[in-house]
Amino acid sequence: MVMSVENSSRKRAREAGVIIGDLPSGKFNAITDVAGVKVGHVTLIEGEAGPLQPGVGPVRTGVTAIWPHSGDVFQEKVAAWVQRLNGFGEVTNSEQVREMGVIDTPILLTGTTNVPRVADAVYDWAFRRDADMGVTTWAPSPIVAECSDMYLSDVRGRHVRSEHVSAALENATSGPVAEGGVGGGTGMSCFEFKGGIGTSSRVVSDFTVGVLVMSNFGRREQMLIAGVPVGKELKDWQPPAPTSVDPDRADSSIILVLATDAPLDPRQLERLSLRAGAGLARTGGLLSTTSGDFVIAFSNTNRVPHYPTSPILMQRIIAEAPVGDATFSHPPLINLLFKATLEATEEAILNSMFAAETLAGRDYNIRHALPIEATLAILKKYGRL
Amino acid sequence: MVMSVENSSRKRAREAGVIIGDLPSGKFNAITDVAGVKVGHVTLIEGEAGPLQPGVGPVRTGVTAIWPHSGDVFQEKVAAWVQRLNGFGEVTNSEQVREMGVIDTPILLTGTTNVPRVADAVYDWAFRRDADMGVTTWAPSPIVAECSDMYLSDVRGRHVRSEHVSAALENATSGPVAEGGVGGGTGMSCFEFKGGIGTSSRVVSDFTVGVLVMSNFGRREQMLIAGVPVGKELKDWQPPAPTSVDPDRADSSIILVLATDAPLDPRQLERLSLRAGAGLARTGGLLSTTSGDFVIAFSNTNRVPHYPTSPILMQRIIAEAPVGDATFSHPPLINLLFKATLEATEEAILNSMFAAETLAGRDYNIRHALPIEATLAILKKYGRL
Amino acid sequence: MVMSVENSSRKRAREAGVIIGDLPSGKFNAITDVAGVKVGHVTLIEGEAGPLQPGVGPVRTGVTAIWPHSGDVFQEKVAAWVQRLNGFGEVTNSEQVREMGVIDTPILLTGTTNVPRVADAVYDWAFRRDADMGVTTWAPSPIVAECSDMYLSDVRGRHVRSEHVSAALENATSGPVAEGGVGGGTGMSCFEFKGGIGTSSRVVSDFTVGVLVMSNFGRREQMLIAGVPVGKELKDWQPPAPTSVDPDRADSSIILVLATDAPLDPRQLERLSLRAGAGLARTGGLLSTTSGDFVIAFSNTNRVPHYPTSPILMQRIIAEAPVGDATFSHPPLINLLFKATLEATEEAILNSMFAAETLAGRDYNIRHALPIEATLAILKKYGRL
Amino acid sequence: MVMSVENSSRKRAREAGVIIGDLPSGKFNAITDVAGVKVGHVTLIEGEAGPLQPGVGPVRTGVTAIWPHSGDVFQEKVAAWVQRLNGFGEVTNSEQVREMGVIDTPILLTGTTNVPRVADAVYDWAFRRDADMGVTTWAPSPIVAECSDMYLSDVRGRHVRSEHVSAALENATSGPVAEGGVGGGTGMSCFEFKGGIGTSSRVVSDFTVGVLVMSNFGRREQMLIAGVPVGKELKDWQPPAPTSVDPDRADSSIILVLATDAPLDPRQLERLSLRAGAGLARTGGLLSTTSGDFVIAFSNTNRVPHYPTSPILMQRIIAEAPVGDATFSHPPLINLLFKATLEATEEAILNSMFAAETLAGRDYNIRHALPIEATLAILKKYGRL
Repeated sequence: MVMSVENSSRKRAREAGVIIGDLPSGKFNAITDVAGVKVGHVTLIEGEAGPLQPGVGPVRTGVTAIWPHSGDVFQEKVAAWVQRLNGFGEVTNSEQVREMGVIDTPILLTGTTNVPRVADAVYDWAFRRDADMGVTTWAPSPIVAECSDMYLSDVRGRHVRSEHVSAALENATSGPVAEGGVGGGTGMSCFEFKGGIGTSSRVVSDFTVGVLVMSNFGRREQMLIAGVPVGKELKDWQPPAPTSVDPDRADSSIILVLATDAPLDPRQLERLSLRAGAGLARTGGLLSTTSGDFVIAFSNTNRVPHYPTSPILMQRIIAEAPVGDATFSHPPLINLLFKATLEATEEAILNSMFAAETLAGRDYNIRHALPIEATLAILKKYGRL
Repeated sequence: MVMSVENSSRKRAREAGVIIGDLPSGKFNAITDVAGVKVGHVTLIEGEAGPLQPGVGPVRTGVTAIWPHSGDVFQEKVAAWVQRLNGFGEVTNSEQVREMGVIDTPILLTGTTNVPRVADAVYDWAFRRDADMGVTTWAPSPIVAECSDMYLSDVRGRHVRSEHVSAALENATSGPVAEGGVGGGTGMSCFEFKGGIGTSSRVVSDFTVGVLVMSNFGRREQMLIAGVPVGKELKDWQPPAPTSVDPDRADSSIILVLATDAPLDPRQLERLSLRAGAGLARTGGLLSTTSGDFVIAFSNTNRVPHYPTSPILMQRIIAEAPVGDATFSHPPLINLLFKATLEATEEAILNSMFAAETLAGRDYNIRHALPIEATLAILKKYGRL
Repeated sequence: MVMSVENSSRKRAREAGVIIGDLPSGKFNAITDVAGVKVGHVTLIEGEAGPLQPGVGPVRTGVTAIWPHSGDVFQEKVAAWVQRLNGFGEVTNSEQVREMGVIDTPILLTGTTNVPRVADAVYDWAFRRDADMGVTTWAPSPIVAECSDMYLSDVRGRHVRSEHVSAALENATSGPVAEGGVGGGTGMSCFEFKGGIGTSSRVVSDFTVGVLVMSNFGRREQMLIAGVPVGKELKDWQPPAPTSVDPDRADSSIILVLATDAPLDPRQLERLSLRAGAGLARTGGLLSTTSGDFVIAFSNTNRVPHYPTSPILMQRIIAEAPVGDATFSHPPLINLLFKATLEATEEAILNSMFAAETLAGRDYNIRHALPIEATLAILKKYGRL
Repeated sequence: MVMSVENSSRKRAREAGVIIGDLPSGKFNAITDVAGVKVGHVTLIEGEAGPLQPGVGPVRTGVTAIWPHSGDVFQEKVAAWVQRLNGFGEVTNSEQVREMGVIDTPILLTGTTNVPRVADAVYDWAFRRDADMGVTTWAPSPIVAECSDMYLSDVRGRHVRSEHVSAALENATSGPVAEGGVGGGTGMSCFEFKGGIGTSSRVVSDFTVGVLVMSNFGRREQMLIAGVPVGKELKDWQPPAPTSVDPDRADSSIILVLATDAPLDPRQLERLSLRAGAGLARTGGLLSTTSGDFVIAFSNTNRVPHYPTSPILMQRIIAEAPVGDATFSHPPLINLLFKATLEATEEAILNSMFAAETLAGRDYNIRHALPIEATLAILKKYGRL
């Protein structure tokens, strides 16, 4: 078992000279630029590339944990929204987020068939930390999102276990975020290259917008980088071999996690989420029919206590709460937040490929790392470097 | 033209002894119990009952105006939501309410085919009052909702004109609200009795919830009063005669306007709106397929200025704005607001029938007033008075 | 462990003389009246009533399986919809149902914290039966819905295991359905009486609508039976004792499963789902804020093959497919289906209480069976028997 | 008054060598490639460019009519969907389309403040043609969508009258479609160039997807053509002068009309609509906060009769109607329809600028035609011609 992966030989898109958009990124150009957000990965790579043994291996999967803030998320829930862009996929407890407007646990990303075990593991972990859950008050609502890693990994085995989830939660840190084939992104593909985890951020006024993606979508010829048809140019470079995985039946998906410290409410987060979809479209995303494309968005400034300290205080506070100000301010701050979302999404997707290293797995299926030098040459040819 | 109707011979449900639910009603048991809300009606009854002359008469229609607060609603927009319960009908600019979370004009209720003229009349009225609209800033977004009054009225004539809309807006008052066959409710039917405008309110903690309906739905045998099958008992009392209006093609609809001074945001107003639907179900409502059933909900405490005074201030204020507190307070205040909504809706629908007087119109079609004494006798028989 | 419960001493509502609505019920007055639908329960009652040992017991939980048709649901998916009425709860893979319009596995009902383990068990079961899943084609999307049984049961223990899920799936039968405290309904409460599983059906034209509920909602004083305030009358009958479970934080929920053989599409099923909500409102349901109230609706006539036999045939077939005919037929068939849904829902909820027997559990908490004789006496007093 | 505009000096994007995407376009590369679809424009240009006289002029507005098929759309309704991408705008009767899944009139596009008058004019026109509407059956539900033309036109005057609407409906034709500053697009802007009407189509298998846009959105520096940042390159070319119209308060909007002969149901049309949003994103669209961005989609193969010929037949037909086949066919036909939608949308937006000629209006505001030669030079520089 390999619990971490070094991306030493790779560069992030921005380091390679690919600049997306106009707004400045934050210090780490990562979702962790939103103060309090932490990210942890557990990466599971077991068994040599070779014939699939259903339920056994090879294993190319993992789990990524995103903390909305550094405190107790159950006690201090964050304003949130889950947006379906295309729904051939799962985000557990999305209904609850829409109804109540909050998320009350860290967010977990993993391979499709691991979802139930990861959700169950969130209970294990939460019940150890909080003696009241399921005893005097309700249990938390795990938020587990997925893409299918069946191209590279055995998925019948559901290899992510409770201890992996606890480890991802406990080892989460602020600061730089490992990208590419790590954590939930271990077995993922993007435009038929190796994909997985990518992140980016933008700073607007006093606020930061951060995006972390788990990418697993797209045919190569659709890929755009900064508007340039790099995928078409690379169509014949190490093309995918025929495989027993029916490509029309195991296609695509992307999960986009959107964090901000702008004090947005769930309705405003819904609006930002659609602009993440616009960023996805800029990279060539088509939202194909068997794609599970979701945005999980939260504001960690807008928090709701599980136990309000006083009903009277609550009433006073809500009486002072205005709505929608970011929308009507002048010039509209929300437009800048929209732009920040779009740019950070587009760059996070690129980072998921720029950072990822070649990986082979089940049935010798292989996803090659995006060839960075060749990519930069194409961008140059199109006047973009 | 008759611009007002006296309901002197009728009683409201509560005056007749029919008590719905447990919560206390406000002073006027009307939507106007929410401070600042005003209601105005213009009632158009022209021509004797008799053969329909398409485009001419008889005229049995009108318009009702509801002011969310007593100020300039464009300059101080109110947090709002429009909920579709069944959508064979129209609420103009509902999309905008959902996107921005605000309403920026008074709300107008009228007959279906009058909708465009009433919306145009809102422009006439607003442009006279505000020199900037459509010149330096955008035009307002009229909220006009409808039910079909074609059973009693000529609808091709679209008889509500600009001056009627202005009059309804200008003559609106706080305090008691005229009910039954007045304003937009003039030509409406409810459970095959005369229906139209009805209102009721409930007081919860420091807050008031008020509902005003324009009722125009239901087959008689479905009608329930306080759970008693009054409609079935009255099935043979003055049954509707055969008519040239195809009942399966001109059926039903109800508009429910929900006002509160609780400082709710649009998401919370959406939640209240669904409970208005529960109140409707309690009266026997089935949401039939050709029914246009909508809730238009607003909080006049949560206001958004058209011109924020300062971007800096805006940012400070939004940074202080929490979300969803009414949901998580203990005990959940929102549950009481849900209950208030349900009770006020059920009672408002009853009031629309209790207050309405018999009216005949096109093709001698007639809607009889609910026979109050017979109704009370039935309620007594079922142990309910 | 008790794997089945006899309800010998109880009567269904209809047997007791309580007739809801006007339409005839099917042969079994159950969801299984829709041809092909099967229901299976596994009931887990372990440990004496007594102090909660978190993670251990007492155990009062279980799982109920509903088969949409008697074939392979993955190979022949059914047209479906999931409707959120109030979303403080979970239906796994609801997003996928909305996007694709189909369900591809049996539906499972259980206690909240069991959800991940039940979903994982659906994988176990499906992978045993189908060698292609997760190998050459995608994995199925388990539909697991829940209510919280924490009032009577230890929920930290998540006591439903893979073998229980397989047993519920394999022992499912057509014909009469066990009701009350069985299967997923084992630990559930309804209006502070014992609740759980209830079912009913209605026949309309050539079509059947069946509803099965897992009830777990409501304060006693809200309960209505056939419009009669039975709950208020029974307020002081064996009132619930104080408990360590915070009632405002562990309140309510109902899952409604709606089956039909009418060839409806997902949009039409969405419309029926809202009428199930109307049926719920008629029993006193308020959709309280911490309630997870969902409708899972399907038509087992409208099926979609996983492997279409021919792309050409597919195109020909879709070219012949009209939309919405049930809506526009004359008189509108869909209105009868709406009414069938409302009536079956109301009666299914009553059956969940009429059938359930008294059960005690954690911390000596006890839910008494609805006292049928007292209930009938109240109905008689209100002129309803 | 000018009732038509020649675009003789302009070229369509494709004629200029700009090829978007991979799929072939139809014969006219227009929405009219979908058999039966017709388009008509009435263009109103009155008064010299000069100071705004509110309510008087200058007039730079108009109306565009799109017929879903060449028959009686009320008698043969088309399967349809209205999708909100950003909702600061209006599409009348969108609620009804979502509920019933059909559109029953031609679609009209115009300037914002004309909407009520255009909707009223649809009544005028329809009532003249059909003696039953509003007499024995219901009135149609006009679909009128808008963008704000206040930058160039007097909008207080609401200059589109009933005769203009009738003319647009009656002069509609199949074949080539006039583009740019015509019809509803007369006063519209796109990326601060002159915009308005644009159209394009794609052919997939046996089916055609056509898109017609009314463009009125975007800051210049956001504009992308085939991924190339043409807007940034043209930032200093004839920049807009300061104006009394607050740009943050009168910004943007686009209406996208999507037609197909693929026999899609409303749910599938909803899915296509989101891919139109992806096409919009590719042109630089950000969906800014005060933008009214909607997709109106229909399939003119899937029709629903107003008067079904036989209830029995209806039931037989619905029993044969499968769902979702295009989704599950192999390879998924729906993915090709998604791609067709995206490509046609992107090209239609470009055509709205390529075809439009410079126009000046209120307060001497001027929108310059996109400089085609300069644009092509930029595309060449970026390796794209």
